[in-house]
Amino acid sequence: MPKLLLNADMGESLGPWKMGMDEAVMPFVDLANVACGFHAADPDTMRRTVRLALKHKVNVGAHPAYPDLVGFGRRSLACSPTEVENMVLYQLGALNAICRAEGTQVHYVKPHGALYNDMMRDHDRLAAVMRAVAAFDAGLPLMLMATADPRPARELADQHGVTLWFEAFADRAYDADGFLVPRSQAGAVHHDAKVIVEQARRIAQGETLVASDGSALRLVADTLCVHGDNPESIAAIQAIRQALESLS
Amino acid sequence: MPKLLLNADMGESLGPWKMGMDEAVMPFVDLANVACGFHAADPDTMRRTVRLALKHKVNVGAHPAYPDLVGFGRRSLACSPTEVENMVLYQLGALNAICRAEGTQVHYVKPHGALYNDMMRDHDRLAAVMRAVAAFDAGLPLMLMATADPRPARELADQHGVTLWFEAFADRAYDADGFLVPRSQAGAVHHDAKVIVEQARRIAQGETLVASDGSALRLVADTLCVHGDNPESIAAIQAIRQALESLS
Amino acid sequence: MPKLLLNADMGESLGPWKMGMDEAVMPFVDLANVACGFHAADPDTMRRTVRLALKHKVNVGAHPAYPDLVGFGRRSLACSPTEVENMVLYQLGALNAICRAEGTQVHYVKPHGALYNDMMRDHDRLAAVMRAVAAFDAGLPLMLMATADPRPARELADQHGVTLWFEAFADRAYDADGFLVPRSQAGAVHHDAKVIVEQARRIAQGETLVASDGSALRLVADTLCVHGDNPESIAAIQAIRQALESLS
Amino acid sequence: MPKLLLNADMGESLGPWKMGMDEAVMPFVDLANVACGFHAADPDTMRRTVRLALKHKVNVGAHPAYPDLVGFGRRSLACSPTEVENMVLYQLGALNAICRAEGTQVHYVKPHGALYNDMMRDHDRLAAVMRAVAAFDAGLPLMLMATADPRPARELADQHGVTLWFEAFADRAYDADGFLVPRSQAGAVHHDAKVIVEQARRIAQGETLVASDGSALRLVADTLCVHGDNPESIAAIQAIRQALESLS
Repeated sequence: MPKLLLNADMGESLGPWKMGMDEAVMPFVDLANVACGFHAADPDTMRRTVRLALKHKVNVGAHPAYPDLVGFGRRSLACSPTEVENMVLYQLGALNAICRAEGTQVHYVKPHGALYNDMMRDHDRLAAVMRAVAAFDAGLPLMLMATADPRPARELADQHGVTLWFEAFADRAYDADGFLVPRSQAGAVHHDAKVIVEQARRIAQGETLVASDGSALRLVADTLCVHGDNPESIAAIQAIRQALESLS
Repeated sequence: MPKLLLNADMGESLGPWKMGMDEAVMPFVDLANVACGFHAADPDTMRRTVRLALKHKVNVGAHPAYPDLVGFGRRSLACSPTEVENMVLYQLGALNAICRAEGTQVHYVKPHGALYNDMMRDHDRLAAVMRAVAAFDAGLPLMLMATADPRPARELADQHGVTLWFEAFADRAYDADGFLVPRSQAGAVHHDAKVIVEQARRIAQGETLVASDGSALRLVADTLCVHGDNPESIAAIQAIRQALESLS
Repeated sequence: MPKLLLNADMGESLGPWKMGMDEAVMPFVDLANVACGFHAADPDTMRRTVRLALKHKVNVGAHPAYPDLVGFGRRSLACSPTEVENMVLYQLGALNAICRAEGTQVHYVKPHGALYNDMMRDHDRLAAVMRAVAAFDAGLPLMLMATADPRPARELADQHGVTLWFEAFADRAYDADGFLVPRSQAGAVHHDAKVIVEQARRIAQGETLVASDGSALRLVADTLCVHGDNPESIAAIQAIRQALESLS
Repeated sequence: MPKLLLNADMGESLGPWKMGMDEAVMPFVDLANVACGFHAADPDTMRRTVRLALKHKVNVGAHPAYPDLVGFGRRSLACSPTEVENMVLYQLGALNAICRAEGTQVHYVKPHGALYNDMMRDHDRLAAVMRAVAAFDAGLPLMLMATADPRPARELADQHGVTLWFEAFADRAYDADGFLVPRSQAGAVHHDAKVIVEQARRIAQGETLVASDGSALRLVADTLCVHGDNPESIAAIQAIRQALESLS
């Protein structure tokens, strides 16, 4: 059984504004999704974040987004596929140059916020992201959401020659199709650390989850997305990390 | 005698706004200084410009700038050297990713506008630009202005392991130190095509120019900066190109 | 019969980038929709545009948009109604200050591009725009599209205490509901100057148009939107102006 | 003896990024310098800040800046006086519209960061700011730094018909000319609450301070600038407030 890697969003400060607890989270994750300046981060923040990742032997991924600082990349923007393709390339390259200056490189790509959601729903945008990734480096994995049926995404990825990394969530409830239950619904977010760790363990070991309609849901995931915004969430990350390591 | 290459600023449109006559100029130059999104250009414009350069076998250079669309990168911004270093890296990488998607790469770096002027006057900023270039790719030349005494820049470049390309201007008057006579002074800009072509020829053949104080000025230059904003300037580029080719 | 005023988008240059032929168009219109910095224009451009409008005794309207220079405000952005309300207020006030410095004021508000389209389709956004307009100045008219059934918009406007100005188009085909036939369809845009002038005249005199399905469409309009991007379109504006003046 | 008002920078959050402790500070100040979107704040943040000010009967001032989010308006930008004039008008008007929507208005103008520093050193930029303020509303005071010799600024203000409000600092050491000792020098910033309160009291009562060279410095000030970034500084504001109230 391959290891289930932990990924977290990082480098989401902007100029004088701080966000996240990157220094507390970095020691416990494997993959850092680093903001590229469109929804958060400036070149100096990006460089500091890459350095911090390297210090903890964490692989850097590009976290490209729609150009929307005020909305933090969470507002969908009606872009054409070509605009999506080129904005992903731009951000990916910008971060890669910062990585090169620190002796490393971008290891994968995970779109952020509304771009991530739009790409999960709209194959034209997903294909645009894939074209960007493949054109930059055919060996670069694209991270997207594990769902009950990963075949359509896999087929598209095969056409574009792109490797996929599927990510799952330990602290969110799923519907029967493997999509996240919207936060507006009761029970959408798990708050009990035991529940979170147990969901992480089940995903790691290939066991089924119970979807919101009571059906069994099997998610095949390469990585687990974790969040480190406050001390409680960092404790959860540590607990997940410990639980996953005890499996191997 | 090595060839004197022609370089021109390109890709300075922005979204719906057009600037420059890139299609008319590209066939006559060797090097395209492509805007990277901070003073002009968006990712789509950058991609179109790189394609146009490739079509005409023109090498692409990064043209990074201060973040200032409204001022077109012509207003000096009081940045720290670290900020300069990282903003150059960011822009250089962004363009390089666009280049990779088209099967090419950034061939050199020429800072734009106020950043270019500031780097010529301030060795801290010049060193910052050099750190960015060297960290990205030690083989990448940095283009800067040929002056009467290139030794200080050469020494700094040697310390940073950076190759320099010096550029001269055929349509501008020079002072005795090899700096451009400010546009506010009479005679600062040559308008007569014969004068322009003759100045290009003298620079190409290593002959001296007459500086504004009457002294002889020798500029050692690798490339000549040309501008293609209107039909007259494009005719001048063609005349320079013809004159230079008749020398070889 | 009240006069059918002509309105045109103005001040859509940005820093060094020019757009539109404002000086040629301004003499022939009554209302200038002035960009407010979010989709186009910077403070200097806004000031020059307001001065030009005053010179020709043209009333200035605010032309607020989503924050999207690269997309020219034509890409829908998934904003909340509160975000829409406050971004309209912000832009309206910014332009009004420029107007005050020139001894005038904003006379009306016409949202731009995707914000305009979204507001025509989504009553939550339309109400948000109305809240902004009413909060700034209850006497300020809001310009929106004349359709076959203006009652829903009128009711919402009555609730918010906002005056509406309906605008129609002389150079576009309409469907039976009074919405514009999409540009992707054949016959969507009229190119024949006679057809354009005749459509303007019919609207001005309260006569029906022939909708795309052959039905009769009556549009009650206060103003006609005209465009001045090239010499042909400016000739069309002059012809419309002449035709309308011969009616009165 | 007129009351010495307390002013503080407010509304410096941006989209998802929080800055400052506005809710803790607002009850203890008289004047809120509200960011206008160029160095910090978005329209929603501005509106919330104006509401908070109104709740505490605090007057709102516009806090315009150079367009520089990443540098937080602290980096000087080489603008022309006209650019300064129009960017101040733009920001002032934007905030005033937000104020109108809340039933109030901008009560004064205090430039931010590098624009403030540049205006104190460069009479062309100071005059540009004054033109903006006077053109918007001749009754609107402009806040600037109290120095040993306020006459040059007063003369310029008289020419422009602008009222000045001079501000002093209780927690900073002054040189003999009434300029702040640079933070890079030892003793530039007072940390002892007693020293800070005593300096506030002396300024309020028109007593002299001891300048860094030992000379006596008299500052005539209308307002005192206070900062509320952390619990200690908020305690200092409360202590100053108490001390000033005990004087009246």
